[in-house]
Amino acid sequence: MALILITNDDGYASKGLRTLVEVAKEFGEVVVVAPDGPRSATSHAITMNTPLRLHHYHTDDDGTRYFRTNGTPCDCVKLGLRVVLKDRPADLVLSGINHGSNSSVSLIYSGTMGAAVEATLSHVPAIGFSLLDYHPDADFTAARHYVRLILQEMLRHPFTDEASLNVNIPNVPLEAIKGVKVTRQAKGYWREEMVERTDPYGGKYYWLTGRLEITDDGEDTCEWALQHNYVSVQPVQNDFTHHAIIPQLKFLEEI
Amino acid sequence: MALILITNDDGYASKGLRTLVEVAKEFGEVVVVAPDGPRSATSHAITMNTPLRLHHYHTDDDGTRYFRTNGTPCDCVKLGLRVVLKDRPADLVLSGINHGSNSSVSLIYSGTMGAAVEATLSHVPAIGFSLLDYHPDADFTAARHYVRLILQEMLRHPFTDEASLNVNIPNVPLEAIKGVKVTRQAKGYWREEMVERTDPYGGKYYWLTGRLEITDDGEDTCEWALQHNYVSVQPVQNDFTHHAIIPQLKFLEEI
Repeated sequence: MALILITNDDGYASKGLRTLVEVAKEFGEVVVVAPDGPRSATSHAITMNTPLRLHHYHTDDDGTRYFRTNGTPCDCVKLGLRVVLKDRPADLVLSGINHGSNSSVSLIYSGTMGAAVEATLSHVPAIGFSLLDYHPDADFTAARHYVRLILQEMLRHPFTDEASLNVNIPNVPLEAIKGVKVTRQAKGYWREEMVERTDPYGGKYYWLTGRLEITDDGEDTCEWALQHNYVSVQPVQNDFTHHAIIPQLKFLEEI
Repeated sequence: MALILITNDDGYASKGLRTLVEVAKEFGEVVVVAPDGPRSATSHAITMNTPLRLHHYHTDDDGTRYFRTNGTPCDCVKLGLRVVLKDRPADLVLSGINHGSNSSVSLIYSGTMGAAVEATLSHVPAIGFSLLDYHPDADFTAARHYVRLILQEMLRHPFTDEASLNVNIPNVPLEAIKGVKVTRQAKGYWREEMVERTDPYGGKYYWLTGRLEITDDGEDTCEWALQHNYVSVQPVQNDFTHHAIIPQLKFLEEI
């Protein structure tokens, strides 16, 4: 029986979280520590200047415990491992299922994947799951199927804590999904549009919006896989060094 | 004359920001867009569910403009490039000088470096500077010297937008600094202690604290450099794929 800590960035009430808990229970003991509201795009943020609250809000008939907190997804992992599990070793941290894509550079801003990376820093293997549908009542039928298959495989094979997995699931019916591709992050960027508005008092404000532009036509990327109806599984590191550039910067050691 | 956008995560009123602006002015036209208060440990977080405000709060005699916003350091870069500079191409984004270290895994949580990585996604070269002193009135004499030298070199050499630079400066007098080392991220983790307290109404809350544990005795790391009184310059990527692990995960394509 595996011990599995689950969190997300859409908040404790989201359908994606409920779905992930249901599937994870097939594999072991589950504990949930989730944000008390949406924390999309909070990346690896942690809470240092505000006290963290932790509220045990529900227990299932089978004993599964649910906690919510005012913190970020990373805080949830820290609170889960240290306070709730009291350093009892977790076998796996799962994050999601996110309502919306975390492909390409969206990974960088993702609270879902922030939590997964955080877990690997504590040497706990971790997987973040995302469905390419932002709707709060999205259909998780296909996602549920692939979450189950991936958990089966990853618990059976020796699992690495060197990288977390960023799993993105296309928003198509189960029978349209062609399988799984192991991918790299597609190069791209968000082309922002700052929508300017004026408040009733005459003050200007901006809504950050935009669209993801992909500048990468590789066939080994998350974007390629998703566009071709494959589930994308991407290993994500927690060493952010650009190792290949180190030799080119050696001239700085002469200053 | 270079066009330089400056931000930070300690907020618009910090001494580190003022110091960085003073040095950067020697190299070109400077525009400041900074958070309206501390945003430490906000990583790559962006603001999607709250409107962003942007207030032009000061102009220097030489015309340098200063803006502050309720957003994160990443939001500052987006607002700076899109709204303030109106897509006029910036030559460089600088972030800092942070009051405190961003070595080892602190890089992952760093708002200072979140802003720098954000800039490289828009193909603008970027450098984050951090001094290993958390004090609000820290002595930036040595930092100022090395910021100047690094800017001189990086504006002279063809500069990459493939990686931002994470520059950490030891907290010792200028004459004690031995030079610059180009480094990789030292492996480590934050050993958290969740300090538990009780509020006047009987409710529990937690302060997230802890200490950085380094599990890496390599002599090519940021930690080694800083402990030996070198300035650490580290290239940081915006592709978070763990490329080396991709072949080991290919079995997942069989499910």
